[in-house]
Amino acid sequence: MASETKETKQANYVFVGKKGVMAYVLAVFTQFGAGAKEVIIKARGKSISSAVDVAEIVRNKQTDIKLKSIEISTEEVQTEDGRPLNVSAISITMKK
Amino acid sequence: MASETKETKQANYVFVGKKGVMAYVLAVFTQFGAGAKEVIIKARGKSISSAVDVAEIVRNKQTDIKLKSIEISTEEVQTEDGRPLNVSAISITMKK
Repeated sequence: MASETKETKQANYVFVGKKGVMAYVLAVFTQFGAGAKEVIIKARGKSISSAVDVAEIVRNKQTDIKLKSIEISTEEVQTEDGRPLNVSAISITMKK
Repeated sequence: MASETKETKQANYVFVGKKGVMAYVLAVFTQFGAGAKEVIIKARGKSISSAVDVAEIVRNKQTDIKLKSIEISTEEVQTEDGRPLNVSAISITMKK
């Protein structure tokens, strides 16, 4: 959906997991504060909901940060007993 | 009298909640099977992860159904004790 351009080289990633949502919101603000043009919020499985929360809080709190694109995909991970398992993943690209 | 027959069906909604993911996958297939050109998968809060699962399963199982767009937003709901609460929401539009 998002066209890959040279500027994505400046993108930084925030991987959303089991910490509180505000930890990731802070991580996004920190990366933009350090000069990032784009920050990509990524999550898999049940953390996808939190990734959307992070993106929404970021853009509601700081209106100069915009939503650029959202992509969803399926990734194969290994379960604890070594079997492959498909999980959904999301990448939310925010730009300043 | 017959002038309405050409009218294509507008988008239909599938609201993803606490049921098993396959129930919603089936709902999407059913709506496309009934002639829908687009089906919009919607969810709020923790169900957002399941909505992404539904979209991914649908497009992996039936490759003529494509992902058209994804939107995220913040909606205000009422808590049980009547206070307003912001929750994130997602709308995933699939097209055939």
